[in-house]
Amino acid sequence: MTQYHPLTEQEAIEYAKTIPGLFKDGAALSSREIGDGNLNLVFHISDPSSGASIILKQALPYAKVVGESWPLSLDRARIESEALQIEGGLCPDLVPRVYKYDPDLALTVMEDLSDHIIMRKGLIERRVYPEFAAHIGRFLAQTLFFTSDLGMNQQDKKVRLQQFINPDLCKITEDLIFDHPYTDADTNSFDEAIRDEVETIWSDTELHLEVARLRHGFLTNAQALLHGDLHTGSIFVTEKSTKVIDPEFAYYGPMGFDIGAVIANLLLNYAGQEGWSPDAESRSEYRNYLLETAKDVWSTFELQFRALWNESNVDRISRTEGFQSIYVEQLLRDTIGYAGCKIVRRVIGLAHVADIDKIEDASAKERAQRLALSIGKALIKHHRQAASFDEVIDIATNETR
Amino acid sequence: MTQYHPLTEQEAIEYAKTIPGLFKDGAALSSREIGDGNLNLVFHISDPSSGASIILKQALPYAKVVGESWPLSLDRARIESEALQIEGGLCPDLVPRVYKYDPDLALTVMEDLSDHIIMRKGLIERRVYPEFAAHIGRFLAQTLFFTSDLGMNQQDKKVRLQQFINPDLCKITEDLIFDHPYTDADTNSFDEAIRDEVETIWSDTELHLEVARLRHGFLTNAQALLHGDLHTGSIFVTEKSTKVIDPEFAYYGPMGFDIGAVIANLLLNYAGQEGWSPDAESRSEYRNYLLETAKDVWSTFELQFRALWNESNVDRISRTEGFQSIYVEQLLRDTIGYAGCKIVRRVIGLAHVADIDKIEDASAKERAQRLALSIGKALIKHHRQAASFDEVIDIATNETR
Repeated sequence: MTQYHPLTEQEAIEYAKTIPGLFKDGAALSSREIGDGNLNLVFHISDPSSGASIILKQALPYAKVVGESWPLSLDRARIESEALQIEGGLCPDLVPRVYKYDPDLALTVMEDLSDHIIMRKGLIERRVYPEFAAHIGRFLAQTLFFTSDLGMNQQDKKVRLQQFINPDLCKITEDLIFDHPYTDADTNSFDEAIRDEVETIWSDTELHLEVARLRHGFLTNAQALLHGDLHTGSIFVTEKSTKVIDPEFAYYGPMGFDIGAVIANLLLNYAGQEGWSPDAESRSEYRNYLLETAKDVWSTFELQFRALWNESNVDRISRTEGFQSIYVEQLLRDTIGYAGCKIVRRVIGLAHVADIDKIEDASAKERAQRLALSIGKALIKHHRQAASFDEVIDIATNETR
Repeated sequence: MTQYHPLTEQEAIEYAKTIPGLFKDGAALSSREIGDGNLNLVFHISDPSSGASIILKQALPYAKVVGESWPLSLDRARIESEALQIEGGLCPDLVPRVYKYDPDLALTVMEDLSDHIIMRKGLIERRVYPEFAAHIGRFLAQTLFFTSDLGMNQQDKKVRLQQFINPDLCKITEDLIFDHPYTDADTNSFDEAIRDEVETIWSDTELHLEVARLRHGFLTNAQALLHGDLHTGSIFVTEKSTKVIDPEFAYYGPMGFDIGAVIANLLLNYAGQEGWSPDAESRSEYRNYLLETAKDVWSTFELQFRALWNESNVDRISRTEGFQSIYVEQLLRDTIGYAGCKIVRRVIGLAHVADIDKIEDASAKERAQRLALSIGKALIKHHRQAASFDEVIDIATNETR
C-alpha cells in the first residue's frame, strides 16, 4: 500500500489499524468518505463500540475546481501536515492533532472534530460564537509572529520559507483572487442580475491599481507563514472551541492576507443577512454581532501581537521606539485591502460562499451580492489610508443603505 | 580529488587540465593564488606559451572577516555559479563566462578578466569609464526585471527563490549593514576622530526607524534575484567593458538593494575625493563625473526597466495604466534608502572601502568620513519622500560644504 493511489474505504480502515494507540486491537471499524471530492479524499473512520474516531485525509493529484480536472501537486499534503504541526506547536488547542503523515500516500491521519461544525454553516444558521474572536485572534498573533523575522531566528526563517514554497496552490490564489475577478475571465462566475456592477469593476482603474499593489504584496512579501486559506469553511467551531483546519495553501506571505480572510468571511455573512435574517431587527442585531466579532478579532490580534513583540522580539533594531506602531498600522492596512479582495472574488470569481449563494430569494440574493461588492470595493480603495479598524465598521455600515 | 579540500596550486593546475577546450594538450601551465584568502581561493591559471588563461575559484568553509574564522556554507559556491549563469543568460557580455562548476569541490572555473581592473581601484586613480553607466544600468534592468514576478512565470519564480535561499551570506548583510552600525557593536570599526558623529548615529531614533523599515524590506521583500553585493569591488572594468563578478550573496530581495549598492559606492568615492583630488578644481570635476555617472546609472536602469515592462511584462493586472510609475517610484525610494545604509556601514561598520580608508592625510580622511556619513544619513532619512533621482545629487551637493 506504499505506492500512491487513492484509497478505498476498506483500505483506509486497514491503514488506520496500522497506527498504534488509535483503536483497540480487533475493533470493527467503519469508514465514511465525507470529503467534497474536489481536492482530497476525507475518510471518517470510527469504532462504534468505543466511540473512538479519526480523520484520514488523502490528497488527490488533481482539483476539480474548473469543471475539468486541474493537476495539483501531492506535495500539498506535506505542506498541510507540516503547517498543522507548526500551528499545533504554537496553539495546540486551536488545530486538530496530527497522528501521522505518510508522504508516499500523501495522507494525514488526524483528530476527528465531528463534535464541531463548519463555522460558515453556523453563521448561516445565525449562531453566536462568544469565544471565536479570542481564539482566532490568538491563532493569528501566535502563528504570524512566531514564524516571522520578528519571532524566530532570521536564518531559520529562510529555511522554513524554503520548506513552504507552494507554487500550485499560490497560483490558484493569484489567479482567482488577484486577477480574474477584475477582467472578463473564463473562470468568473456571477449572476447576470449584477452584470452592470461587475462590468463597472472590470473598468475601474483606480480599483485595479490597488489590487495590483495587493497582488504584488502577495507575490513578494515573505512576512510570515500563512494558513493561506483562512475562510470560515476552514474553521470548525462549537460555542467553546475553535479549530483551524486545511492549511494546504500555507506559504510565506503578507500577514494581512490571513487576518483579512477572517474579516472578509464575517463581512460576507454580514452581506448574506439580506437573505437569512427573518426581519430588520434581527438582521441588525446579527450584523452588529458580526461587526463586533470582526473588531474583536483585530483587537485581540493587535493586543497579543504587540505583547509578543514586547516580550519575544528577536530583531534588535525593530525594537526602536515607534517601529511597532508603524508595523501594526501597515498590518491593519494590508488586512483591510486583502479583506476587500477576498470579498469581491466570492461574488464575481470562480468560488462562491454559501452565505450568499444559498439565499433562495433572488432579490435578497442580488441585494447581498451588491452589498458585498460595495463593501469589498470600498475596503480595497480605502485600505492604504486606514488608521483604525473602526473604519472597516464604518465602511460596512455606510454601504448598508 | 573529488572530496572537498582546499586545492594547492599544483592541484588547481591538474584540475584545469581535465576541462576540455581550455588549454592545449601538454601545455606547461602556471598557477598563482590571487585571492585575498578571506572567503575563497582564487587561482589564476595560465599557459605562458599561448597566453590562454582561466580563473579557478574555490570557496573556503569559513570566512576570516571577524578576526577569527566564521563558518560559512560551501553552498555559496553553487549559488555563485548558478547566479552567474542566470546573469550570463541575460547579459552575456557583462559577466565572466562559466566553464565548469564542481559541487564536490565548491569550485567554479571561469573566464579570466586580467585585462580588466577592479573598478574601485580605477575610481581611486580618478579614471573615467564612459560606458559604465550604460552597462551597469542594463545589467540591473535585465537581471532584476527578468527574475521578478513581472518578467518570469510566477510559479517558476517561487522555485527559483527556493534555489537561492542563502542564510549564511544574508546574515552577514543583516548584521553588518542593517544592525551593527547603529549600536555599539563589537564588530564596528571606526576612527576615534569621528566618535562624536558615530555616537550621534547610535542615538538617532529617526534614523533607526528608517533603517528598521529598510532592514524589514531586506528580510521580507522577495522581489528579484539580487547580486547581493554589487559594490565597485565586485565590478571589473576597462574603458569599454564592464564585468560583474562574485554573486555569492545572491538571493531574492528588494531590487533597490542592488541599485543602491552601485550608487553608494560611487558616492563613497565622491566623499573620498577629499583625499584623492590634487586641488579643488579637479575635485569638483571628478565629483561631477561621479554624480553624473550615478544619475546615468539610475536613468539607464529606469528607461530600460520601463521598456522591458512595456514589452515583456507577464503580470496582467500590473499593466494597469499608472502602476508602472508607482512601482518605479518605489524602486527609486528603496534605491536611495539602501544606498544610504551601504554608505554608513562602510565608515562605521566592520568592512570599509579603500576609497576612504587608504587616504593618508588624517584630516582629509576625517573629512571624507564625515561627508560620507552625512550623505548616507540624509539619503536614509529622505528616501521615502523622494520623487526624482535629482534629489540624490542635491543631497550629495548640499552635504558637501
